Amino acid sequence: MTLDQLHSNLEAFKAKKLELDMSRGKPSEAQLDLSNQLLNTVTAEDYKTNADIDTRNYGGLDGIPEAKELFKHFLEVSSIDEVVVGGNASLTIMHDIISRAITHGVPGSLLPWGKQTVKFLCPSPGYDRHFSICEHFGIEMITVSTNEDGPDMDEIERLVSEDESIKGIWMVPKYNNPTGLSCSDGIVDRLSKMYTAAKDFRIFWDNAYAVHHLSEEHDEVKNILDTCKAEGHENRPFIFGSTSKITFAGAGVAAVGGSVENMDWYRGHLFFSSIGPDKINQVRHTRFFKSIEAVHVHMKKHAELLKPRFEKTLAILDEELGGTGLATWTTPKGGYFISFNVVKGTAKRVVALASEAGVKLTSAGATFPYKKDPNDSNIRLAPSCPTLEEIDMAMHIVCLAVKIAAKEKEQSAIVL
Amino acid sequence: MTLDQLHSNLEAFKAKKLELDMSRGKPSEAQLDLSNQLLNTVTAEDYKTNADIDTRNYGGLDGIPEAKELFKHFLEVSSIDEVVVGGNASLTIMHDIISRAITHGVPGSLLPWGKQTVKFLCPSPGYDRHFSICEHFGIEMITVSTNEDGPDMDEIERLVSEDESIKGIWMVPKYNNPTGLSCSDGIVDRLSKMYTAAKDFRIFWDNAYAVHHLSEEHDEVKNILDTCKAEGHENRPFIFGSTSKITFAGAGVAAVGGSVENMDWYRGHLFFSSIGPDKINQVRHTRFFKSIEAVHVHMKKHAELLKPRFEKTLAILDEELGGTGLATWTTPKGGYFISFNVVKGTAKRVVALASEAGVKLTSAGATFPYKKDPNDSNIRLAPSCPTLEEIDMAMHIVCLAVKIAAKEKEQSAIVL
Repeated sequence: MTLDQLHSNLEAFKAKKLELDMSRGKPSEAQLDLSNQLLNTVTAEDYKTNADIDTRNYGGLDGIPEAKELFKHFLEVSSIDEVVVGGNASLTIMHDIISRAITHGVPGSLLPWGKQTVKFLCPSPGYDRHFSICEHFGIEMITVSTNEDGPDMDEIERLVSEDESIKGIWMVPKYNNPTGLSCSDGIVDRLSKMYTAAKDFRIFWDNAYAVHHLSEEHDEVKNILDTCKAEGHENRPFIFGSTSKITFAGAGVAAVGGSVENMDWYRGHLFFSSIGPDKINQVRHTRFFKSIEAVHVHMKKHAELLKPRFEKTLAILDEELGGTGLATWTTPKGGYFISFNVVKGTAKRVVALASEAGVKLTSAGATFPYKKDPNDSNIRLAPSCPTLEEIDMAMHIVCLAVKIAAKEKEQSAIVL
Repeated sequence: MTLDQLHSNLEAFKAKKLELDMSRGKPSEAQLDLSNQLLNTVTAEDYKTNADIDTRNYGGLDGIPEAKELFKHFLEVSSIDEVVVGGNASLTIMHDIISRAITHGVPGSLLPWGKQTVKFLCPSPGYDRHFSICEHFGIEMITVSTNEDGPDMDEIERLVSEDESIKGIWMVPKYNNPTGLSCSDGIVDRLSKMYTAAKDFRIFWDNAYAVHHLSEEHDEVKNILDTCKAEGHENRPFIFGSTSKITFAGAGVAAVGGSVENMDWYRGHLFFSSIGPDKINQVRHTRFFKSIEAVHVHMKKHAELLKPRFEKTLAILDEELGGTGLATWTTPKGGYFISFNVVKGTAKRVVALASEAGVKLTSAGATFPYKKDPNDSNIRLAPSCPTLEEIDMAMHIVCLAVKIAAKEKEQSAIVL
C-alpha cells in the first residue's frame, strides 16, 4: 500500500472520532467487580482481628497480625518480622523508603543519600513511576538494557563493582512492566551474589505482578531474600507488593518485605509519620482472602478477563505486522503489559498518529529514564481496560500508524 | 500527713496491682462505637461518589469532590482548591510536608531545608509528635513559653524577625495539646502579620481539635488562612485536620489546607508518591457526614462521653490539691488533655511514683522539645479512655504521688 493509501485509511478512522485508551495498567470494571464482596466483610458489628484487636483505634504500626501473615506468603519472606503492611499503595512505600534514604540513609549507609552523589541502575524498558521517583530526588539514572531473561548482568556487575555511588537498582522481577517477561534464576543468583562497591546497595524488587498469571503456565522467579541471605547480603532487597491489581487499585493494601534489620529500620522511621495503617481495610482483605491459596483462586478470575484481551492484542499484531519486519513484541505469561518495538526513530510518531485517530497510548519514551528512549522505538501496550471490540479497533489503528511511520521514515531516507 | 503516712497510702494502692492508663489521647471504645454505622455506608453494591466516580480504581490524587467539600468547611478554607484530602492520619501529612521541605523546599524556599540550618519555634508545653518530627529531621527546636491566650508573641516576633533560619512554628490553635486552651484573636493576628526574616516561613496549624468541644460553651479561633491572606502572607499556614477523634482513630480521613500555591505544590509532590488516597474510605465518611453540621451533631455525642471524665479528673484535683499550692492545672472547654503543673523538679518523680502504683502517665518532659521540661514540672493528663471509676482511682494515686514528691523535695531541701 502507498503512504497515501495508508493515510487515507487513517483518515477513515479519524472520521469515527474514537476515544480508545491502551495507555494505562488499570484494572477494568469487570475486574474490580470480582472483589466487591470485600466491601461487605467488615460491618458495624464485626471489625476486630482474629485476636480481637479493636481495629478502629490507634496502634499496630506495621499491620495487623493476619495481614502480616498473608503478606509473608505473598512476598515470600520467612517470618512476619520480615514484613511491614501499610496503606493503599506500594508506590507510596517505595517513595517513602527512598525519601528516608535521602534524608537519613539505610542500614549500612555512612551518610544520608542526600549528602552524596547517588545513582540507580534502571533496566529498561521499565516502569515510568520508578524513574520519576529517582528524577524527583536527583538520583542519577543509568539505563541498563534488558534481555529475554532479565537485565544485562555483565553490565550491572561491572558498574556496581566500580562505582560506590550506585546505591540501587529497580527490578520488576516477574511479568515486568512493560516487557511482561520474568527474571531467570541465574539473574537472581547474580544480583544476590555480586560485589557492590556501595556498602548500602539496595535492590528495589517491585513484585507488582507476583500472582498475576494469564494462564496455567506460570513464570516462577527464584526467592530473592533467601538467595541474598545465602550470599551474605540479607539487607540487599526491599520487596514490594500490593493488592492494587488483585482487589481494588485505589483501596487495596500494600506491603514491603526484607531482612529484619531493614524492616526494623523502616518501623523505626514509621514511628515519626504514622499512628498505624488503616487496620480496618486490612481486616477486609484478610477476611476476603483467608489464605494465599484464596488469592491464587481469585487471580484465575482476573486471568479469565485479561487473557482474551492479551490474545486479541497479540492476534492483531500478528495479523497486521507478522513477518513485515516492522515491529517486534513480547508474549507475556502474566502481568499487564506488552512491550512493542517499532522501527527505530518512529515510536513518537506512531503514538502521535494513533492519538490523532483517537487511540491513547503510553507516551513514547516513558519506559526509559528521563523519558528518553535512545532508539525512539519502544511502546507500552496496556490491554487490561478496553473491551475486546475496543482493542480490535485500537490495535488496527496502532498497526496502521506503525506502517505509516515506517513508510514515512523510508521515504524521507530516500529523499535525503 | 507525714511522708511515711503518704508512702504507706501508696503501698496500699500498690498492693491492688492496678493497671490504669491516663497517658494517651485515645478515644474510648464507647466513642468509637458512635461511628460504627460508618462501616455500613459503603457496600458491594454501592461505592461510587455523588458524581458517579468509581472509587475502586486509581486516580483522584487530592481526594473525592465531596470529601474536599467537607474538609473545606472543616479546615475553614475558601475553596476545594485549597484542600488536599489524604489517608488516615494528619501526622502522616505533617511529616510528609516537612520531609518534602527538607528534600525540596516549599514555595518561596531558596534552597531545600536540608541544605541549610533550619529551626522551628515550639510553644511549650506542646505535642510530642510534632517535636519528634523536628528532632528526626535535625530541625533545631526553640522552646517558646505559653500563656493563657497562646504562645509568647513578643518572643516569637523578636525571634522570627532576626533569624532567617527559623522556618516554622508548631501550633495547636484550639484546645491545645496539652493545655486544652485556645489562641486569642490577637495571637492569630500577630502570627499572620509578623515580619519573618525567612521568606519561606510556615505555620504548622494543627487544628486537631477543631470541633472537639466538651460543652455548649465553645472556644472560637480566628480564621488563620483568611487573616494571613489579609496580611499578604497567604502561603504562611499549612492547616491540618482529621477525623481521627471524630470517627475512627486508626481508620479516619485526614486533610491539609492552605493557599492554592501551597496546595498545588503539595499535589505536585504527591504525584511522585501516590496513586490517589483510599477513595472508598472517603465515600464512607462523606455518606456518614453529609455536611459539616452533621459533624457538629456527632461531636455532641463525643462530648457526652468526654465531659464527665474531664469533670471527674478536675474534681479530684480540686478535692486533693485545691488550695495546697502544690499544683496548678488547666480547665479546658474542649480537646483531649489537661495540663498539670506540679512542684518544680518533681514531675518525673510523680510519674514514676504513679507508675509504681499502677497508673501510667505520659512521660514527664514529653510535652517539651527534646523531651526536656526545664522545670521538670509539667504532666499531661489524658482522661478520654479510662472509665470514671478508673479515673477516680488513678487521680487519687496521682495526687498522692504529687504530695509525696513535694514532701520529699521539701525534706531534702531541709537536709541540705
